[in-house]
Amino acid sequence: MAKDSYLVGLIGSGIGPSLSPALHEREADRQGLRCLYRLIDIDTLGVPPAAVGDLVRAARDLGFDGLNITHPCKQLVIEHLDGLAPQAEALGAVNTVVFEGGRAIGHNTDVTGFAASFARGLPDVPLERVVQLGAGGAGAAVAHATLTLGAGRVTVVDALADRAAELAAALNRHFGAGRADAATPDRLAQLLARADGVVHATPTGMAAHPGLPFAAELLHPGLWVAEVVYRPLETELLRTARALGCATLDGGGMAVFQAADAFRLFTGQEPDAARMLADIAELAGAVGAQK
Amino acid sequence: MAKDSYLVGLIGSGIGPSLSPALHEREADRQGLRCLYRLIDIDTLGVPPAAVGDLVRAARDLGFDGLNITHPCKQLVIEHLDGLAPQAEALGAVNTVVFEGGRAIGHNTDVTGFAASFARGLPDVPLERVVQLGAGGAGAAVAHATLTLGAGRVTVVDALADRAAELAAALNRHFGAGRADAATPDRLAQLLARADGVVHATPTGMAAHPGLPFAAELLHPGLWVAEVVYRPLETELLRTARALGCATLDGGGMAVFQAADAFRLFTGQEPDAARMLADIAELAGAVGAQK
Repeated sequence: MAKDSYLVGLIGSGIGPSLSPALHEREADRQGLRCLYRLIDIDTLGVPPAAVGDLVRAARDLGFDGLNITHPCKQLVIEHLDGLAPQAEALGAVNTVVFEGGRAIGHNTDVTGFAASFARGLPDVPLERVVQLGAGGAGAAVAHATLTLGAGRVTVVDALADRAAELAAALNRHFGAGRADAATPDRLAQLLARADGVVHATPTGMAAHPGLPFAAELLHPGLWVAEVVYRPLETELLRTARALGCATLDGGGMAVFQAADAFRLFTGQEPDAARMLADIAELAGAVGAQK
Repeated sequence: MAKDSYLVGLIGSGIGPSLSPALHEREADRQGLRCLYRLIDIDTLGVPPAAVGDLVRAARDLGFDGLNITHPCKQLVIEHLDGLAPQAEALGAVNTVVFEGGRAIGHNTDVTGFAASFARGLPDVPLERVVQLGAGGAGAAVAHATLTLGAGRVTVVDALADRAAELAAALNRHFGAGRADAATPDRLAQLLARADGVVHATPTGMAAHPGLPFAAELLHPGLWVAEVVYRPLETELLRTARALGCATLDGGGMAVFQAADAFRLFTGQEPDAARMLADIAELAGAVGAQK
């Protein structure tokens, strides 16, 4: 018998503008499920990212059914869990924790979420040479997604050279040698000049981290630009790229599809992603590809 | 502007059968408020009663709006709060905690809850000599209620003689000298023989503590018997008393009226106690006075 109520939440930094509470609660309402989704912001609480372990244990004790986890806790949370789904283990990043009989199991719905959004929003773009900015938790997920979608080679760019190299090595182990390499931002001009597209997977552009992730001059009309940030939907990067004539994909679709996959894990019920896409369009303006 | 969602819960021991989740969630549903009420059982968690302080802090951090507190934590919780409503301070017992701007404020809705139930269920009984069993948190609340309703004298009986004496002294300070005294259970036969009624305010008779709080032979048809326990509604004490012809009052009415008062504190909205009485009758069988 299905449970009839679900208490879930999101742990992260600067998450006040998150649309996840509305996405989950609206879909639950339509399915007749009692659902409450709380924002647990480590900045508001004044605790460091490493406190995610204590927060996860407290949530389990207080009757939460699960949690979403976001920046900067997606990797830190892993050591505090009792088990990992295979995808989360391969990625080394968790965005969804489900409490099952007192155990905390980590999942990752960012890969499937980004893949579904990309396939829907940029279905026909070339994928031979992809540059990705950001090798953190979300970065690992979207690199897995683009390689799964058939990208020829993904070059992972991160100011932390070791982090980029480690992600590229992990991707090559998982997808086969030569599918990924690593670089630092000083090589971006050269990389973007001959790339098919760029995936942006750093926090820059979020409400708490405004601005562009690299100089506007590095963009050119031959690039497609896919954004992971969805708060706001319209980042400075997307606005600048669209003005140049680039095909673009905002982070709203990924937000919806990762939420839909988390909803399925939390509730055991099948979400209606089309209704959730309509919700995010209403909640945050137009969503998806704008070419 | 009123908030539109409320996350609340109950901290205590052996609370699995509690009807509070259904009482609060049903009334919230009728008012169009999103409400989720979670049971936080220290036995299930395997933590001692003193852990209530950590649980209250965790609930505040995770976005709870308030908590109910029950046996055995109603007095232990006080040192962990940031403030007390006057009634809770007078009683030295808290059954409701409201989080207001990061502060945890303690309230007590057991007094008003028991008074309303008594006035409704046993409106015409004599109140000159009342014997009360139990001097814990609930006992302090119902003694305040019966004295507020006009009881001539309340004799507080508890196996812990100091606890009974302390409650009687506090009642005399609050209501005037001579309104309360204390005794130990060995004097119960003598006290009940000449009492008008008995209020039972110990955990005996709860699902986790079955049995009678004193020997059945001490009951007589001239006594009214008021019960605080409401899980189950039909305790062995009430069944035995009713078989003798005593007027009786079960704990369901108190449960409803204390929940209604807590609902008002949590949500700022006025509950409809009549609808909540209908709920408890449906959820747990007949409720209120059965003479």
